Amino acid sequence: MILEGIYAPVPTPFDLKSGDISHSAMEDNIRRWAVTSLNGLVICGSNGELPFISVSERAELTRTAKLALEKSGVDKKIITGTFMHSTRETIDCSVRAADAGADAVLILPPHYFKAAGMSGAKKFFEETANSSPIPIVLYNMPGNTGVNLDAETVIELSRHPNIIGVKDTSGDMTQMCRIANECGENFSVFCGSGNYLLPSLAVGASGGTLAVANLYPESAARLLKACMESDMPRARALQYRLMLASDALTRKFGVPGLKASMDRAGLYGGPCRSPLSDLGDDEKHRLFDALDSTGLDEYESWRHIC
Amino acid sequence: MILEGIYAPVPTPFDLKSGDISHSAMEDNIRRWAVTSLNGLVICGSNGELPFISVSERAELTRTAKLALEKSGVDKKIITGTFMHSTRETIDCSVRAADAGADAVLILPPHYFKAAGMSGAKKFFEETANSSPIPIVLYNMPGNTGVNLDAETVIELSRHPNIIGVKDTSGDMTQMCRIANECGENFSVFCGSGNYLLPSLAVGASGGTLAVANLYPESAARLLKACMESDMPRARALQYRLMLASDALTRKFGVPGLKASMDRAGLYGGPCRSPLSDLGDDEKHRLFDALDSTGLDEYESWRHIC
Amino acid sequence: MILEGIYAPVPTPFDLKSGDISHSAMEDNIRRWAVTSLNGLVICGSNGELPFISVSERAELTRTAKLALEKSGVDKKIITGTFMHSTRETIDCSVRAADAGADAVLILPPHYFKAAGMSGAKKFFEETANSSPIPIVLYNMPGNTGVNLDAETVIELSRHPNIIGVKDTSGDMTQMCRIANECGENFSVFCGSGNYLLPSLAVGASGGTLAVANLYPESAARLLKACMESDMPRARALQYRLMLASDALTRKFGVPGLKASMDRAGLYGGPCRSPLSDLGDDEKHRLFDALDSTGLDEYESWRHIC
Amino acid sequence: MILEGIYAPVPTPFDLKSGDISHSAMEDNIRRWAVTSLNGLVICGSNGELPFISVSERAELTRTAKLALEKSGVDKKIITGTFMHSTRETIDCSVRAADAGADAVLILPPHYFKAAGMSGAKKFFEETANSSPIPIVLYNMPGNTGVNLDAETVIELSRHPNIIGVKDTSGDMTQMCRIANECGENFSVFCGSGNYLLPSLAVGASGGTLAVANLYPESAARLLKACMESDMPRARALQYRLMLASDALTRKFGVPGLKASMDRAGLYGGPCRSPLSDLGDDEKHRLFDALDSTGLDEYESWRHIC
Repeated sequence: MILEGIYAPVPTPFDLKSGDISHSAMEDNIRRWAVTSLNGLVICGSNGELPFISVSERAELTRTAKLALEKSGVDKKIITGTFMHSTRETIDCSVRAADAGADAVLILPPHYFKAAGMSGAKKFFEETANSSPIPIVLYNMPGNTGVNLDAETVIELSRHPNIIGVKDTSGDMTQMCRIANECGENFSVFCGSGNYLLPSLAVGASGGTLAVANLYPESAARLLKACMESDMPRARALQYRLMLASDALTRKFGVPGLKASMDRAGLYGGPCRSPLSDLGDDEKHRLFDALDSTGLDEYESWRHIC
Repeated sequence: MILEGIYAPVPTPFDLKSGDISHSAMEDNIRRWAVTSLNGLVICGSNGELPFISVSERAELTRTAKLALEKSGVDKKIITGTFMHSTRETIDCSVRAADAGADAVLILPPHYFKAAGMSGAKKFFEETANSSPIPIVLYNMPGNTGVNLDAETVIELSRHPNIIGVKDTSGDMTQMCRIANECGENFSVFCGSGNYLLPSLAVGASGGTLAVANLYPESAARLLKACMESDMPRARALQYRLMLASDALTRKFGVPGLKASMDRAGLYGGPCRSPLSDLGDDEKHRLFDALDSTGLDEYESWRHIC
Repeated sequence: MILEGIYAPVPTPFDLKSGDISHSAMEDNIRRWAVTSLNGLVICGSNGELPFISVSERAELTRTAKLALEKSGVDKKIITGTFMHSTRETIDCSVRAADAGADAVLILPPHYFKAAGMSGAKKFFEETANSSPIPIVLYNMPGNTGVNLDAETVIELSRHPNIIGVKDTSGDMTQMCRIANECGENFSVFCGSGNYLLPSLAVGASGGTLAVANLYPESAARLLKACMESDMPRARALQYRLMLASDALTRKFGVPGLKASMDRAGLYGGPCRSPLSDLGDDEKHRLFDALDSTGLDEYESWRHIC
Repeated sequence: MILEGIYAPVPTPFDLKSGDISHSAMEDNIRRWAVTSLNGLVICGSNGELPFISVSERAELTRTAKLALEKSGVDKKIITGTFMHSTRETIDCSVRAADAGADAVLILPPHYFKAAGMSGAKKFFEETANSSPIPIVLYNMPGNTGVNLDAETVIELSRHPNIIGVKDTSGDMTQMCRIANECGENFSVFCGSGNYLLPSLAVGASGGTLAVANLYPESAARLLKACMESDMPRARALQYRLMLASDALTRKFGVPGLKASMDRAGLYGGPCRSPLSDLGDDEKHRLFDALDSTGLDEYESWRHIC
């Protein structure tokens, strides 16, 4: 499996009353995304409220996504977030995700005991990679974990045959440049945010998994295409607009903002699990104004197909 | 319930082969601590490898501890760590801990989605306190979570009748001083590290839950007594020695260090769960030398009682 | 020279029109402080707007302070802040401060080039100590410099015969405890903030240089006395009130707050140098209310002596 | 004046014996750089050991550089670093730099008193811009100052007619993208490090002032040209090699590394001012190996012209 193109880290839909997962909403959303240019979906990433979803729920979500894609008859990859704090639970979760149809798993480094450091991360990923039936994508997300998975460690881990890439959300271009050039050809670097997709591609990333791609997959795909075609002026102009949408969605309003925007766009966003709080009306207005000002909706005609 | 005195945050003993919890080792350890001056035990705190222990395991550990204390015929409190990332799982875990015999629960603030901030923390603790059958102790542990539960938030939360105290491991004396003086009489401040027990007592803490108290409960109790009796020179001398032991155990060598030291002292330490790694021989020597140099063993004669 | 008791880091008075130093205001202020329990004054510390004061101005301020103390016929020490970013300018400034009558100099670690680290700090302090005609007090102020002068480095530097102490404003009790116990008898630890004077004394500090002591020297001296007499309940109550005043003055409103409070108390505060801005009316009200609520004015009768 | 192309932040040459500035070495170095593609020189930036250089020395260095460029008969801009901690000294330094021939001044935000924040930064830059005879380039360097000059503040300041650009060394692509797109046409964004020149250009920077350009000006100019010509594969390959050189020079070995490399390349590097320390032999070998491995020397034939 090669990581490339644009992936969406899809939110987990919860039933308004019970707070349980709504598999019908999940299926509906995926049917909608099936017609887009997205190359894959990430289930239970940070935007999928990963830490609030149990091991069983993650497997069930994966199964639902797999079936929905099959029904739609499209070829898109599924990557499932299977991080648990202990190695044994992470392996268990990865096995169950594989069984449910995931193509790969996305795994954070250990981060509660900060002293474990990079040697703890190596141990954790190597033990997991040895036991996971499907490939591992490293997930560097220092804004949430407080731990940066450094270039040296990623390069070492890239030699493991069952570790195929990294999603890097550090925004550190030096690190991304080094990783993209010093890992082998079978290892891919994915940008973790629409805020800096073009800079990441410029230093060697092969694509990205972007919260903003849940709503603007065609915009992200156009940016990627402009970059591949070396049309820098066009890529630069798209990046600015994508950054505005991405920054509003993720840095300012987080998962609740993404869900509110999906509700407005005719997808199912629904509520977050507590302790996250849904946006108030005032926040929604500010978010929607920020999104509308980007003018990117013109590229997203798929939203009108129901 | 009033928090006071010295508590030990006990490690979780794992079977060497299976990696499952060893309830017999837990029982043996607790029988040993029963004869000490400890006022209580914390089950599944950070030193109990909290994030690696499932909800069911936490309840079972609590039940084992409760029974062991009853068998020993001593009156010591049990506080169980029940933090899960979602409110619903935290409540579920708290209900099960209560059912298993815990006197109170110890709960971290939400910390994966940093943007939730103090308003997310308030929502989380209030919803949990409304539903927990037993009182809540707030657990401020910024070194592990990357989130500081600030004084204003703690003071607001202290007004909830089911929130009875805070274990503060920030080391921030301004914050601790403000909390100790501005929360009501029914709210207690507990120091979270033997590194600064005396300074904490000096600004109003009523005791502490200290990793070092697993091995040096009498030393900690002596320090507390010296402070209560206003014998500052004695308290100061004890604090320096306790800091040396505490700093070696927790800041330098973490849970693996605590477990290795327990093995040496005739308690059951055993292995950590991966991704934590047990200490190597060289690290053990350095740790044991540091502990021996404190000279505190003279106060810990209970260790010779089997 | 032995560091002990309470020192005030005095603000630098500027002429309202020219922005130059007002030596007459400096002299008046010092005449007022002469009757207090203060053991010494720090000229050109952070509260003296150190980085805005030229080498010549620092020497002149020292000379004015020395003469004013002599006129008042009291025995109080003068410590002058002589940090410049290069070693050669720091030595030059220290020589001139000594010539102007300072008893010691207070010096920050190098901090612009963070990579220099603790080995850069050692080199800097040792070269300076070798050339300074008067003793050096290390000045650890990570909140302003972004660099923590760690315990190991302080302990090594304490062996230099011309380095006599450290003013520690890290608030890190572990570090202060280690330094206070592992440096020799001729080396003193001074607390750098009224926010945690009592905790610092509890781990071995011999006093402090406290912004709050510009206005509340008797309150600070009473706390010190209560601690020396092992009257913990009294010390604890005083610490809370002193923390409230200190926190409002320094953490919330900074040097502009200290100067506004001095103006109100009949001392000369005057304007700050740009880019610092003087407080607005609303900020002044909040600050003065916070100070008044401490009730500490009752101990400060010296303010009525003109 | 429009900021564009590649600038070198030149080191300040000191006499080996006296530690004073060696104006003849400065002149020799500039004569060498005169034949390169560099568009300008920065005098007394961070690599010029800014905080160790007095106001008079900065003016003299500027004068020497101006004369050397005139003698060489080439048209390159001079920007002088004139930050002092107080506004009044910064203005004084800027006036003297202008008088000595600088085309613009480069100024850090205030950073000792962190509480001054962005409102302090605005006040500082506006007062300085009102009084400086030549334009101001904002200098965002959070790694050294601990303060990030945020996008909102830069955008507001960009409206001042005497503020013409920003050198951003934060590495934050979101921030750079926003600034490059939301400031007017007369305001330029300069990348502050060779580690991420291409990503910066990709989001709208017009060039950069790069430590690595002291040794590899032609390599940087080639990267810039490849990007302008939308030759992304070539730009990407050059960026990786430039990053390796830049990272070794600045992040790993700092100013001492830059000076050692200049000595080796036949320019005058010479000693640093204390507390910086010159590299040891082992460090030099590691640095030189890292530089040689980039293969960029092939583009730098100007080094053979004496």
